[in-house]
Amino acid sequence: MYAAAMADDKPGPRRGRPGYDLDSLLAIAAEVFNERGYDGTSMDDLARRLGVTKAAIYHHVSGKEELLRLATGRALDGLDGAVRHASALDAPAIDRLEALVRGTIAVLEAELPCVTLLLRVRGNTQAERDALARRRDFDRIVADLVKEAERDGDIRPDVSPAVTARLLFGMVNSLTEWYRPPWRGNGWRGDGSPGDGSLADAVCAIAFDGLRV
Amino acid sequence: MYAAAMADDKPGPRRGRPGYDLDSLLAIAAEVFNERGYDGTSMDDLARRLGVTKAAIYHHVSGKEELLRLATGRALDGLDGAVRHASALDAPAIDRLEALVRGTIAVLEAELPCVTLLLRVRGNTQAERDALARRRDFDRIVADLVKEAERDGDIRPDVSPAVTARLLFGMVNSLTEWYRPPWRGNGWRGDGSPGDGSLADAVCAIAFDGLRV
Repeated sequence: MYAAAMADDKPGPRRGRPGYDLDSLLAIAAEVFNERGYDGTSMDDLARRLGVTKAAIYHHVSGKEELLRLATGRALDGLDGAVRHASALDAPAIDRLEALVRGTIAVLEAELPCVTLLLRVRGNTQAERDALARRRDFDRIVADLVKEAERDGDIRPDVSPAVTARLLFGMVNSLTEWYRPPWRGNGWRGDGSPGDGSLADAVCAIAFDGLRV
Repeated sequence: MYAAAMADDKPGPRRGRPGYDLDSLLAIAAEVFNERGYDGTSMDDLARRLGVTKAAIYHHVSGKEELLRLATGRALDGLDGAVRHASALDAPAIDRLEALVRGTIAVLEAELPCVTLLLRVRGNTQAERDALARRRDFDRIVADLVKEAERDGDIRPDVSPAVTARLLFGMVNSLTEWYRPPWRGNGWRGDGSPGDGSLADAVCAIAFDGLRV
């Protein structure tokens, strides 16, 4: 269905007057994919939502799959940065793990639509499968950090490291279900600026030390 | 699209030779909805996956929306049962909260496709909006329990009760992303029988007491 739409819709030369730069185009495309599902979104849907012609979108990208690739890439590049930052710390594994959780939440706050899209990718297209492969690399790094922290005696040994890693990042990823940046308005009562760390403080307090007093 | 498909497809009298009872029909329909998305699934897709005629499905239900209503209803009825069980306990709020977490996980283990479907409902149809309304009732009960436990001094006061409730059930709900019943095979290394409590033990250990030693 997608291939047929592409063949029909794609104009020859790239032209048109784009009303968005690539960054805002990606954020809005990711939002529409999240609302309607990637498979259920056509280039017409995107053009309508953006209030531009399809030609204006093709000015930036070759089509829907490239939008997905770039949008998930933005989330994954952010996560890679969080991994590099955490790995470079001269600190025990449990502290590097906490730094990675905080870095992941900062990426999630800054790139909410793209991270949400990444978490919903199913693997029907090559761009989706590539994104899933990079997600699995990230998951492996998390699982290795948890294992190392457990060997250090810093993480409870009664839950397997693989399950601990999944539950920890299950909690982190669940933020995409309800967290909305302050300028979009919603229930979160942090001090307001994304990246101020108050959301990460809440997650780390509960995940590392538990909700029980 | 759905209404048109219904008008075309629905046979007059209910007939056909159903190959499934309603329970297994619902579980498989929920699985297909989860894989393809509810909007992207047609009655033809369901019939093909079940290996029966559409008439055999119409023997049980009036159409796609009734399948969604019954499948999410099964998850919600299970959660209502977990709420009733937890509420009836003569115990402090934090213990009733833990009982509710354990009850929710037992429902998730027993009704994985229907619970997963419930968590993915978007609200495009009346059946979806009704399911979302019942989900909100459940969320309110959780939030009230967390508040009560915080008033008792049993839950850390440095994270708001609303956020604590969301993170706790964010962790619980994230199980649907990777947990698969043992008979379907996957990474979980519990002792094997759904409802044996080992998955709930892991979640409660980390959520209530933290992953840090």
